[in-house]
Amino acid sequence: MPAEAVFDFKAYLAEKRAMVDAGLEACFPEPQGFTFDLITAMRYSLFAGGKRLRPILCIAGAEAVGGVGSDVLPVACALEMIHTYSLIHDDLPMMDDDDLRRGKPTNHKVFGEPIALLAGDGLLTEAFSFMTSQALSERVPPQTLLQAIRLIAWAAGHEGMVGGQAVDIQWEGKAADLEVVRFMHTHKTGAMITASVSSGAILAGANEFQLKAITSYGEKIGLAFQISDDILDIEGDSETMGKRVGADEEKGKMTYPAVLGLDPSKRIQGELVQGAIDELREFDRRAEPLRRIARYIIERKK
Amino acid sequence: MPAEAVFDFKAYLAEKRAMVDAGLEACFPEPQGFTFDLITAMRYSLFAGGKRLRPILCIAGAEAVGGVGSDVLPVACALEMIHTYSLIHDDLPMMDDDDLRRGKPTNHKVFGEPIALLAGDGLLTEAFSFMTSQALSERVPPQTLLQAIRLIAWAAGHEGMVGGQAVDIQWEGKAADLEVVRFMHTHKTGAMITASVSSGAILAGANEFQLKAITSYGEKIGLAFQISDDILDIEGDSETMGKRVGADEEKGKMTYPAVLGLDPSKRIQGELVQGAIDELREFDRRAEPLRRIARYIIERKK
Repeated sequence: MPAEAVFDFKAYLAEKRAMVDAGLEACFPEPQGFTFDLITAMRYSLFAGGKRLRPILCIAGAEAVGGVGSDVLPVACALEMIHTYSLIHDDLPMMDDDDLRRGKPTNHKVFGEPIALLAGDGLLTEAFSFMTSQALSERVPPQTLLQAIRLIAWAAGHEGMVGGQAVDIQWEGKAADLEVVRFMHTHKTGAMITASVSSGAILAGANEFQLKAITSYGEKIGLAFQISDDILDIEGDSETMGKRVGADEEKGKMTYPAVLGLDPSKRIQGELVQGAIDELREFDRRAEPLRRIARYIIERKK
Repeated sequence: MPAEAVFDFKAYLAEKRAMVDAGLEACFPEPQGFTFDLITAMRYSLFAGGKRLRPILCIAGAEAVGGVGSDVLPVACALEMIHTYSLIHDDLPMMDDDDLRRGKPTNHKVFGEPIALLAGDGLLTEAFSFMTSQALSERVPPQTLLQAIRLIAWAAGHEGMVGGQAVDIQWEGKAADLEVVRFMHTHKTGAMITASVSSGAILAGANEFQLKAITSYGEKIGLAFQISDDILDIEGDSETMGKRVGADEEKGKMTYPAVLGLDPSKRIQGELVQGAIDELREFDRRAEPLRRIARYIIERKK
C-alpha cells in the first residue's frame, strides 16, 4: 500500500481470516473411513467461526519485520488448532461445563465426551504436524523453525496455557488475590498470544531488538485481551458473543473486575494497550496491523 | 562388546531404562509455585514404573544403524511422555474408566479429572518442547530432527494413535470384524511403536534401505505387541501386570482373541515377531537389541 493510503483494518482482518481459513481447509483432512466422526469433530470446532486472532497475530508479527504472511501460514494455522483444542477441553463437563461456544453447541454436546476429548488431543498433535511440514521446513531455515516451534510448545504447555488452566480450575470458588489472577491470565491466555506474534516475527527473521519489542507487545495485549474477556463477561451481550455472559461470577472465577473492580480493570487494560503500541515506536507502517489489533482488543464486542 | 560376547538383554534393558529415567528426571521440572499439583500429576504418571519400551526402541533403532543412544535421548524421552499422556486420557472415566495402572491408582483417582486431563495435555505438549530443545537441534541436523518430529506427530495424531483410540471407543460393545480390529491395533498401538524405532533410525542417519527395513520391523512388532496385550488380558496375572485382567471382555472390547480365538492369535503373533526379525537380516550385531525386543514381546508377562 502507498504510505499515504488509509489503512483499512476491517479489510485486513477479513483478508487474513480468509487466508487462514483457506490454509486450514487445504491441509485439513476430509472425514472418511473409520475415523470419520473424529475428524468431523475436529473440523466442527476448527471451522466454528473463530476470530482467528492468534494466526492473524502470527502473520502480522511476520509482516511487521518485513516478512510475507503466506510464508508463516502453516504455523499460523497450527496456532489456531492449539487454541481450538484448548477450547474443546476447557468446555468439557469436568472443566468449565459449557454448552455453548461461538453460538453453537460445544463439541462434547454434539459428539459426546470421548470424541471431544480425542478431537482436542488430535488438534494439538496435528498442530505439530503442520509446523513440521516439509513445505514449511524448505521455506524457513530449519533452525529458525525449530526455535519457533519450541516457543509455541513452551507457551502451550505447563509453563504456559496448560499451567494457567490448572490454576484457573484449582482456584475456582476461592478468593484469589491479584497475583494469582495475573498468573492465570498471563499463562492461560497471554502466553499463547505472545507466542503467536513472536513466532511470526522469529520465522520472518526478526533481529534481537525487534523480537524483544514484539514480545513485550504480545505480553501486554495478551493480558489486555484476557481482561477484556473478563469485562465482556460482565458487560457483553450474550447474543453478540455467542456464549453465556455472567458465567465467571456464577462459577466463582477470579477475574480482574472481581478482584479490582470494573473501572480500575478498564484503566489497566487501556494502559496495557497503549504500552503495547508504544513498544512498536521504532517500527514503520508495516507494524500498523499490530497497532490496530491492540486497539481492537478494547473495542471488540465478542 | 566383543563379537563373541553373549548379549545380556536384561542388562541392556536395565541400562537403557536407567538412561531414560535419568533423561526425564534431568529435564522434567520439579513441582513448585502455582502449578505444583499439575506438575506433580505429570510426574506421578511419568515415573510410575513404565517399561520404557518406546524410548528403548528409539535408542535401539538409532544403535542398529550405527548411532549413539544418548544422542537421541530427548526424543526417546518425548516418546515416553506421549505414551504416558495417552494412558492418562485413556484411563479417564469417560474413556476406559480404569482405577489401576501399573499397580497404582490412575492419575484422575489421585488428582481428580481436571488435573488429570491437563496433566495429559501438558505431557503431550512437553514432548514437543523436548524434541525441539536447543541442545538436540545442535547435535542432529535440524532437517533430520524436523523429519523425526513430523513422523512422531503423525503417528500420535488422528492418523495414528488418536485415530485408533477413537475407533476403539466407538466400536466398544459392537461386533467388529478383523479389519476393524486390525485398524484399531495398528493405529492405537502400532503407529507409535513404529515411529519410536523409525525416529531413532532417522535421527542416527539411516539410509533409505535401513529405514524401510526398520519401519517394517516396527509395524510387525507393533501389531504383535497389541495382540500380546490382548492375550495377557485373558491369560495374564493381575498382580504381575499391576492392572485388572479380563477388562477387555467385560467392556466388550474387540480384540484379536475375541475375533479369531486365542490359538490363531498366538500363531499370528509368532509369525509377526519372526517376520520382524527377518526384516533385520542385513543388519549386523548392532541390531541385536531390536531382535531381542521382538522376542521379548511374546515372552513378557506384563
